[in-house]
Amino acid sequence: MNEQILQEVREKQPLIHHLTNQVVMNFTANGLLSFGGTPIMAKEVEEAGDMAFLADGVLINIGTVTSNEVDAMIKAGKAANEKGIPVVLDPVGVAATSFRKNVIDKLLKEVRFTAIKGNAGEMGALVGEQLETKGVDAVGEGDSEAIAQQVAQTYKTVAVVTGAKDVIHDGETCRINETGHPILAKVTGGGCLLGSILTACLTTSGSRLDQAYTAVAFYGASAAHAASSAEVNGSGSFVPVFIDSLSAEVKELRA
Amino acid sequence: MNEQILQEVREKQPLIHHLTNQVVMNFTANGLLSFGGTPIMAKEVEEAGDMAFLADGVLINIGTVTSNEVDAMIKAGKAANEKGIPVVLDPVGVAATSFRKNVIDKLLKEVRFTAIKGNAGEMGALVGEQLETKGVDAVGEGDSEAIAQQVAQTYKTVAVVTGAKDVIHDGETCRINETGHPILAKVTGGGCLLGSILTACLTTSGSRLDQAYTAVAFYGASAAHAASSAEVNGSGSFVPVFIDSLSAEVKELRA
Amino acid sequence: MNEQILQEVREKQPLIHHLTNQVVMNFTANGLLSFGGTPIMAKEVEEAGDMAFLADGVLINIGTVTSNEVDAMIKAGKAANEKGIPVVLDPVGVAATSFRKNVIDKLLKEVRFTAIKGNAGEMGALVGEQLETKGVDAVGEGDSEAIAQQVAQTYKTVAVVTGAKDVIHDGETCRINETGHPILAKVTGGGCLLGSILTACLTTSGSRLDQAYTAVAFYGASAAHAASSAEVNGSGSFVPVFIDSLSAEVKELRA
Repeated sequence: MNEQILQEVREKQPLIHHLTNQVVMNFTANGLLSFGGTPIMAKEVEEAGDMAFLADGVLINIGTVTSNEVDAMIKAGKAANEKGIPVVLDPVGVAATSFRKNVIDKLLKEVRFTAIKGNAGEMGALVGEQLETKGVDAVGEGDSEAIAQQVAQTYKTVAVVTGAKDVIHDGETCRINETGHPILAKVTGGGCLLGSILTACLTTSGSRLDQAYTAVAFYGASAAHAASSAEVNGSGSFVPVFIDSLSAEVKELRA
Repeated sequence: MNEQILQEVREKQPLIHHLTNQVVMNFTANGLLSFGGTPIMAKEVEEAGDMAFLADGVLINIGTVTSNEVDAMIKAGKAANEKGIPVVLDPVGVAATSFRKNVIDKLLKEVRFTAIKGNAGEMGALVGEQLETKGVDAVGEGDSEAIAQQVAQTYKTVAVVTGAKDVIHDGETCRINETGHPILAKVTGGGCLLGSILTACLTTSGSRLDQAYTAVAFYGASAAHAASSAEVNGSGSFVPVFIDSLSAEVKELRA
Repeated sequence: MNEQILQEVREKQPLIHHLTNQVVMNFTANGLLSFGGTPIMAKEVEEAGDMAFLADGVLINIGTVTSNEVDAMIKAGKAANEKGIPVVLDPVGVAATSFRKNVIDKLLKEVRFTAIKGNAGEMGALVGEQLETKGVDAVGEGDSEAIAQQVAQTYKTVAVVTGAKDVIHDGETCRINETGHPILAKVTGGGCLLGSILTACLTTSGSRLDQAYTAVAFYGASAAHAASSAEVNGSGSFVPVFIDSLSAEVKELRA
C-alpha cells in the first residue's frame, strides 16, 4: 500500500461525480466522505457534462441503470475523457441480461475508462468468458488473473477483479491483494463503494497500478479491521464501524 | 414458526428480484442478505422479464412508483407467473391517491400474486373497505381478519395484514401472529423489508400459510429481540442491531 | 429554542411530503420519524398534487433532480400554496450547473416558499452572489447575514443560511444559531434532513422565525450531543446515535 496516495486524497478531498445505482447511493456517499473524498451524485443528462467538468473523477456503475440514464453516463464519461480526469466503470451484473450487455457495449465504445472493476463473472463477460453468476454476484472465480489481463489489454485500462483474492492488472503487471473480509459480501454495495474509493485514489499522482492496488488493499484492510471490532455482531452492526474505519490511517488498521 | 423454512432459505439463498421503492432499497437489501436471501433490484422494463426468469421470487412494492415503472412491474410479475415462482405485492399507500389505486388495479389484473401484504388500510382498500389512513400508514386496524379473508378469497392469494397483531389468511384458514415491536413503526421500510423476507420464505417447500406465518413471526421476533438489546437507545441504533438479528437462529431470539 | 414547537410536532406528527434526492431518502425518513414527524416520499406527477393535499407540509430538495421530476415538484408546491400549508425549498448545488439554476428559477416562479434553506453558496446564487463552491458544498461563507436578508426579502420567505454559524432571517429580524458539529459535514444529507425537520416545525403554531430557529438550533444541539457520545468513533457510528438523539427532549441534549 502506498500511503502517499491516501494522504493525497485526504488533503485534496477530490470531488467524485457518481452515476451509480439507487441501492448504494447513501452508503457510497458516506463511505467516500469518511475516506476523504467528496461525493456528488446526479443523473440528469442536461447537467452530466457540466458536473463531470467540475469533478476530479467520475464513477459509472450500472447496478440499477435504466435506458434513460445511459446518455447521462456517456456524456459524463466523455467529459471526463476530454478534461483528462479518471473515469471508472463498474459493470454490475453485466452477465445477467442482454440489456446490461448492450449498455456496457455502448459505454465501452464511447468512453475510455481509466479502470474497470468487477467480480470475475462481470469482468469475464467483458471479454467473452462466461462464468456462473447468481443475479449480480459471481459464483466461481474462474481464472481471475487471465481475465484481468485480458480486460486490461482489450480496453487499455487498469482491470480490478474482486474476489477472495483481488487481482489488479494494467496489461503488463499483475498485483494480488489478499486483504478483505467475507462479511463484505453480506453488505449491499460492498463492491460499489470500492469503485468510489478507487476513483478517488486514481485522482492522485503515482502509477495507475499503485493507485488501484492501494485502493483495494486499504479497502480490504478497513473491512477486516472493522469486522474484528468488538461492536460488530453481524452485517448490520458492521456497516457503521466499517464507514468509521475508512477514515483510519494505515497504522491504525494494523493495530 | 417452521424452522425448516428458515433453514431452507439459508441453504438455498434464494435470489429475490425487487421492484421496490427508493426509500428502502438499501435497508431491504441488507436485511434480506442478513436473513439469508440474495437481493437484486432493477426497474428497467427491457430487462424486467429476464431478471424475473433468473430469480427465485419477485417482490413488487409501489412505495415510490412512477408511471414509467408500472410496465416493468407487470413484465416481472408475468414472467414470475410463467416461470411458476412466487410473486408478492406490497400495495404501499394504495388508499392515499387515485394514481396508486389505478396502478394496483392494473397489477392485480395482469399478475397472479402468491401473497399480498399490507396494513389494514391498504388491504382494506383492495376490497373496497375504507379505513382511516395517514399518508402511507393505517390509523385504525378495522376488522383485520375479515379484510384478510376477503383479500385472500378475492385474489386467490395469501393475505398478510400487518398491525399490532398480524393476520395471515389463505382464504380458508387464519393464523394470528403476535411477535413484533412498536419501534418498527419508527423505521422507514419496516413493512417493506418484511415483504422481501416473505418472498424469500415463499420460495421454500411447505404450505403457503406456513411460509407466510413463519416469515411474519420470525420478523417480529427478530425485531423484539433487537429492541431489547442493551445497545439500542432509539430507532437509529435499532436498525443495525435488527439487521444483525435477522440472521439469528430461532433459539437465539428466544434467549 | 421554543420547546412548545417541538412538543407540538411530537403530538401532531405532521405528515411531510418529500420530493427529495435519492441519496438521502432513507436517512431523511428515519430522521424525521425519530424527530416526531411522518414522512411520505413520492415523485409521480400524477399524484403529486393529491399527496400534497393530504400532507401538513411539503419539502422540495433538488439534490438529484431530473427534468421529468420538476413538474411533480411544481404541482406539489402549488397544491401546498393552495391548501395553505408550509412548503420549503432546498436548492442543493444550485450554483454548480445551469440546469440547476433553471430548475430553481422555475420553482421560484411557480411556488411561494415558506422557507428556503441552503449553504451560503447556494443561497447566494439565488440573489446573484457568486461564492466559491465545490460540487454541492460551499467553500467560503461570504456574508451570510446579508445573503439571508436578501433572500428573505426577495422571495418573501424565511431564509436559513447554514454554516459554522447558521443565520435565520425573515427579512426584518435576524437570528444566529451556534449549535452544531463539524461531523455533520461528513454525513451525506446532513443538510437535507434539516430541511425535513424545518418543514415539520413550520407546521406548528408560532412565528416563522421562531419555528425556523427552533428547528436549526435543535438539530445542531442533537448533532453535538450525538457526537459527544461514547459510542461515536467517526461519521459511520455517528449516524444511528444522531437519529436516536433527534427524538430527545431539549433538557436531555443539555445533559
